[in-house]
Amino acid sequence: MTDTLPADVNGLTLEQKASLTSGADFWTTKAVPDAGIPSIMLTDGPHGLRKQAGSSDHLGIADSVPATCFPPAVGLGASFDPALAKRVGEALGVESAIEDVAVILGPGINIKRSPLCGRNFEYFSEDPIVAGVMGAGLVRGIQSQGVGSSLKHFAANNQEFDRMRASSDVDPRPLREIYLRGFERVVEDAQPWTVMCSYNRINGVYASEDPWLLTQVLRGEWGYDGLVVSDWGAVNDRVAGLPAGLDLEMPGSGGGTDAQLVAAVRDGSLDEAALDVAAGRMLDLVRKAAARPSVVGPLDVDAHHALAREVAGRSMVLLRNEGGVLPLRRDAKIAVVGAFAQTPRYQGAGSSLINPTRLDNALDAIRDAATADVAYAPGFSLEQDGDAAALRDEAVAAASTADVVVAFLGLPPSAESEGYDREHIDLPAAQLAMLDAVLDVNPNTVVVLSNGSVVALPFRDRVAAILEGWLLGQAGGSATADVLFGDVNPSGKLTETIPLRLEDNPSYGNFPGEFGHVRYGEGLLVGYRWYDARGLEVAYPFGHGLSYTTFAYGDAAAAVDASGDVVVTVPVTNTGEVDGREVVQVYVSLGASAVERAPRELKAFASVEIAAGQTREVQLTVRRADLAYWDVRVDRWVVEGGAYTVDVAASSRDIRSTTTVTVEGDAVNLPLTMESSIGDLMADPVAGPIVQQAIAGMLGGAGGDAAGASMMADDDGMQKMMASFPVGRIAGFGIGGVTQEQIEGLIAMANAARH
Amino acid sequence: MTDTLPADVNGLTLEQKASLTSGADFWTTKAVPDAGIPSIMLTDGPHGLRKQAGSSDHLGIADSVPATCFPPAVGLGASFDPALAKRVGEALGVESAIEDVAVILGPGINIKRSPLCGRNFEYFSEDPIVAGVMGAGLVRGIQSQGVGSSLKHFAANNQEFDRMRASSDVDPRPLREIYLRGFERVVEDAQPWTVMCSYNRINGVYASEDPWLLTQVLRGEWGYDGLVVSDWGAVNDRVAGLPAGLDLEMPGSGGGTDAQLVAAVRDGSLDEAALDVAAGRMLDLVRKAAARPSVVGPLDVDAHHALAREVAGRSMVLLRNEGGVLPLRRDAKIAVVGAFAQTPRYQGAGSSLINPTRLDNALDAIRDAATADVAYAPGFSLEQDGDAAALRDEAVAAASTADVVVAFLGLPPSAESEGYDREHIDLPAAQLAMLDAVLDVNPNTVVVLSNGSVVALPFRDRVAAILEGWLLGQAGGSATADVLFGDVNPSGKLTETIPLRLEDNPSYGNFPGEFGHVRYGEGLLVGYRWYDARGLEVAYPFGHGLSYTTFAYGDAAAAVDASGDVVVTVPVTNTGEVDGREVVQVYVSLGASAVERAPRELKAFASVEIAAGQTREVQLTVRRADLAYWDVRVDRWVVEGGAYTVDVAASSRDIRSTTTVTVEGDAVNLPLTMESSIGDLMADPVAGPIVQQAIAGMLGGAGGDAAGASMMADDDGMQKMMASFPVGRIAGFGIGGVTQEQIEGLIAMANAARH
Repeated sequence: MTDTLPADVNGLTLEQKASLTSGADFWTTKAVPDAGIPSIMLTDGPHGLRKQAGSSDHLGIADSVPATCFPPAVGLGASFDPALAKRVGEALGVESAIEDVAVILGPGINIKRSPLCGRNFEYFSEDPIVAGVMGAGLVRGIQSQGVGSSLKHFAANNQEFDRMRASSDVDPRPLREIYLRGFERVVEDAQPWTVMCSYNRINGVYASEDPWLLTQVLRGEWGYDGLVVSDWGAVNDRVAGLPAGLDLEMPGSGGGTDAQLVAAVRDGSLDEAALDVAAGRMLDLVRKAAARPSVVGPLDVDAHHALAREVAGRSMVLLRNEGGVLPLRRDAKIAVVGAFAQTPRYQGAGSSLINPTRLDNALDAIRDAATADVAYAPGFSLEQDGDAAALRDEAVAAASTADVVVAFLGLPPSAESEGYDREHIDLPAAQLAMLDAVLDVNPNTVVVLSNGSVVALPFRDRVAAILEGWLLGQAGGSATADVLFGDVNPSGKLTETIPLRLEDNPSYGNFPGEFGHVRYGEGLLVGYRWYDARGLEVAYPFGHGLSYTTFAYGDAAAAVDASGDVVVTVPVTNTGEVDGREVVQVYVSLGASAVERAPRELKAFASVEIAAGQTREVQLTVRRADLAYWDVRVDRWVVEGGAYTVDVAASSRDIRSTTTVTVEGDAVNLPLTMESSIGDLMADPVAGPIVQQAIAGMLGGAGGDAAGASMMADDDGMQKMMASFPVGRIAGFGIGGVTQEQIEGLIAMANAARH
Repeated sequence: MTDTLPADVNGLTLEQKASLTSGADFWTTKAVPDAGIPSIMLTDGPHGLRKQAGSSDHLGIADSVPATCFPPAVGLGASFDPALAKRVGEALGVESAIEDVAVILGPGINIKRSPLCGRNFEYFSEDPIVAGVMGAGLVRGIQSQGVGSSLKHFAANNQEFDRMRASSDVDPRPLREIYLRGFERVVEDAQPWTVMCSYNRINGVYASEDPWLLTQVLRGEWGYDGLVVSDWGAVNDRVAGLPAGLDLEMPGSGGGTDAQLVAAVRDGSLDEAALDVAAGRMLDLVRKAAARPSVVGPLDVDAHHALAREVAGRSMVLLRNEGGVLPLRRDAKIAVVGAFAQTPRYQGAGSSLINPTRLDNALDAIRDAATADVAYAPGFSLEQDGDAAALRDEAVAAASTADVVVAFLGLPPSAESEGYDREHIDLPAAQLAMLDAVLDVNPNTVVVLSNGSVVALPFRDRVAAILEGWLLGQAGGSATADVLFGDVNPSGKLTETIPLRLEDNPSYGNFPGEFGHVRYGEGLLVGYRWYDARGLEVAYPFGHGLSYTTFAYGDAAAAVDASGDVVVTVPVTNTGEVDGREVVQVYVSLGASAVERAPRELKAFASVEIAAGQTREVQLTVRRADLAYWDVRVDRWVVEGGAYTVDVAASSRDIRSTTTVTVEGDAVNLPLTMESSIGDLMADPVAGPIVQQAIAGMLGGAGGDAAGASMMADDDGMQKMMASFPVGRIAGFGIGGVTQEQIEGLIAMANAARH
């Protein structure tokens, strides 16, 4: 089909070009039959295909064709394994191809700023490197099948509340270093066919019409050459959006905004060249889609279900396991309590709602795996708290005679959805009450959690084990049994901190904002960066996750390679009895920095399989670019030179080996100006000695009283006071009889000496 | 002299007007002899007069004439008594008048955002009502003597680091509700003759050239009619500053900027009318100064020293007093340790450094008051940590044989100064080590603290008592003995929270900023507002302070009076054996608010003397204006209607009686627009029912799948999702077949029905 497409959009009329850059309906673009350009389909993802059959919507309401429901990003992310993400992406690509879908909408890589965000289940992490690396893996997989991905939601869309109007007010450093860093990585590493701009405004400007975001940063700085599509309904003003870099409006507006574009070109308020660029990108996208090798169904449901099960097994995080309660013995007398065991909560609500090909539940899987009878009591109602006491009593009865209890707790489906946020992080009271009652009769209780974002775990020290199951997709039930019985050794780790209380979260008090603005007041200190900086106790730290085996770390080594990256190596030994997989993490910090920094930041990670008793030499690469901070003085990334501390760790709070590596810094070389401080001048090799001498002379002449003398003696205090004095004010302030001309001369001399 | 002054500046030349609006030298303005306008003097305060004799500076280096050194604001504020502040102001006015000083530079009422700010000792509180009420008291006192005050540092100058360049980046609500509220109160209640603009920038604009700050807010909104003077050296660009509202540049620039003004008027870039206004205000100031009744010295040193002693007694805060260790028995065997007992730390460094008329030390005063011998050992060196072990051993020896130990600890003079900030809040290690050693031999130890801003108190649970002495001025030594022996019953309360750790402070990570910007990321949650909102444990909460007696609170009542203010009454009984004084505090909150709020905010307070066994009916007024939040939608103060909780309290965490009062709200009445959300429309009496019906119809037609049905059944979730959907996007999004015209019609109808 590719060969029927025109080479470019030069032959298209103005109306055709406008038409090409907005949707025909909810999910398809408009064909231009005269020019031989077909319509293509873009449909929801990202953890499965949501291709709607009949009536269409963007809220997950109407029916869609069956597809494999893989674990959403909250689960997949916990694997810390981009190769696994790539395999999921390949499967998504295959399913999309079978359904003739050109672009599947995902991955979503927004930062989990607050656990309250209703869409956290669709996102990977509170850390941008995790989000970026995992997102790139998924994109690579999808696109390897000739299907496009859509990297979303670009950008700083970290809440659902008022998402179509609110401005995310973010300072340059957190915007670059936290909220854009993951997008930058996916764009540069995996070139997604499309990037989806978000609903919200950023520092007052709608993402859908922000030339800084969509053009200067995305294309200019990051070299993106794909297409920018609006989130569904995100276009505020298409005539403003198009020249800003918005190529495709979705869904269709019935031709209304096409006519606006045409009129704007005709009256001269819009340059037709901008429309040519957008239409050209749309043509490129159609060409890429047309180049897809033909794929014929039907879908291999079994194979994809098996993959979903494998991924679900890799998604679970074993938070706690006291006294070796896990893995369960197959012949143990097991009581399963909690309605989620039979009615799994396996995905979130909204645009990503998949119609699964199959659905496993944990209860059946546990009964299949166990050799003894397994008792079951739902313990609570998923719908309401009505008959709580009777349900609770039934669970207590089951628990009281069991060797071990497995309690399935979680958030009800209505708690987490696209479109709105949670207001607290507590599990429903009826569930907590049931667990309390169960623990009273049987403390040998394993809690299995189903939740798309973190919940408070007030019971964590009273239960024998906690298996955080997130949302695990359609095969989560069987995968849970795999892990409970040890057929799969858990290896997931936390991509987000589990705090003790919501009030400890960095965004608390600044989330979700009001009257159209949300201030990202915590700045750089998002997630573990905050908990570490403030020295706050947490329930479970970022990066934490247990295994049925144990791993010993040897001494780490770090060196800068020829390309400037830091290569870290560390031997890791599986010191236990069973094979396992460890997520090795590298955190980096710079003690004496000129800029505010978190105590440590994750810069590399690797998920490695290690057989029992074996040692593997693990090698991880910290990219030089990831060491950079965004320097607001020069508006660019700067790597600060110095001796960086490299912590090789099993979690953000379980550092196993520390080394240092000296990195050469980027030159910044700011010229001195009248706004420069005395401190700046004193640090200058030319101006410094002259200023030192001048200050000494000035202070000597200031008089001889005791306080003055003591202050002069206190060099440190006086130097601190003088250091930030702008040199341009010295003359006006009458210090030491220095003239404006003398200062200007000194600055000129110092600047000249630099070259 | 007044009668020789011209009626206005019409007769002055352009050069004379420019000359009149900048300093002649460091401390005086320029006379215009031809027009009969004399020079006037402005000199440093605010807790004493710093009139320099010989060479001049603004850093407290050169000598000044002796003056009474009252407790700086950190001490005076703890009295929570504006009447006491007024008496101090009267004394400052008298001393200024004797020295022919027209304006004394103070009070400083900036908010203590971080305990690290080097100038906190000059400021009153972390709370704007405390700062505003106390500042107004001081201004009233000063100006009652025909001497002007200078309200400073206007505004958002909450750190010393990079103070001449850094921009305080503050959102509208915290700027208005926290950082400007105190200034607004002083201006409206006490009309200071001058307001001093600060060095820093606010949201990118230098205070000295910010028309929004100096004209729109200060004069337009608050009705200020006095003069704006630059902080010394704060002028960045006088030609820009003058029309923005900067009237007087200090100190003199040797005529340089006068010439710039003249040239700017001549070349048309500056309107001469702006200069007329500034010169006119300068003439007004000279006229006020000239109207001062003549005062002849000498100063009554004894009377002012006695006042300084009384105020110091009111400034101390008894944080802890276990087992009735205080007051001390006069015949007890007392060991005094700690060098501050003999070498008092009684004021901070920088521009407010007073040359005191006299200086008491606590050791002498304790020896005078005691009937038994008092042992003394310095315990540590104030200069260095050199001979620490020997000094410590000597203190331990003295402590080991004493009935009670009084340990004087504090910050060294170099720790706190104008011009630079602290980097931690710890006491010096040598002092803590000495205290540890002393406690090992004698736990019956009273700690007396000398510090201008809070310090961490890791020993707080191990000592018998802690008397927070702040900086107490020249009579602090005798006042300390007054309180220790019970001649004065302590009544001061904390105007700032003492946190457990610096890391708990709201500004941590956002202080002091970098590269010219400091983000006030904690927003409204400054001081106790933060600790309460986040439920953080503190060492001692805002408002805390013990007495040698006890107070019982009866039931509070609250009612709205004719002017709309809330009048709160509560009976308070002195239930102990000695007369005392209690600072009764009123905190207000509104649970179901449309805006983010702190859990409770101080809105009124009263310091009341109550004799032993007596009850007083205490009446406090919460001004209606102080209930308002700053509404960013309409850019004005809005009182939200509702049932406010009124907590009458002995501290922010010691609520004694709670009542509620229903307050009628201000109408906001925003018109509906296409940017309004479905939620906004649904809340509208006209549009609401129509929208409800439309949504019901739309959802009914969306299809019948299980997820959709369950979501529709979950009204709450769906309503939350729809609530923030802007109505202007409905048509573009294709929801329910609604057209843009239908929505516009609905909005027009709803808006029309409002009138």
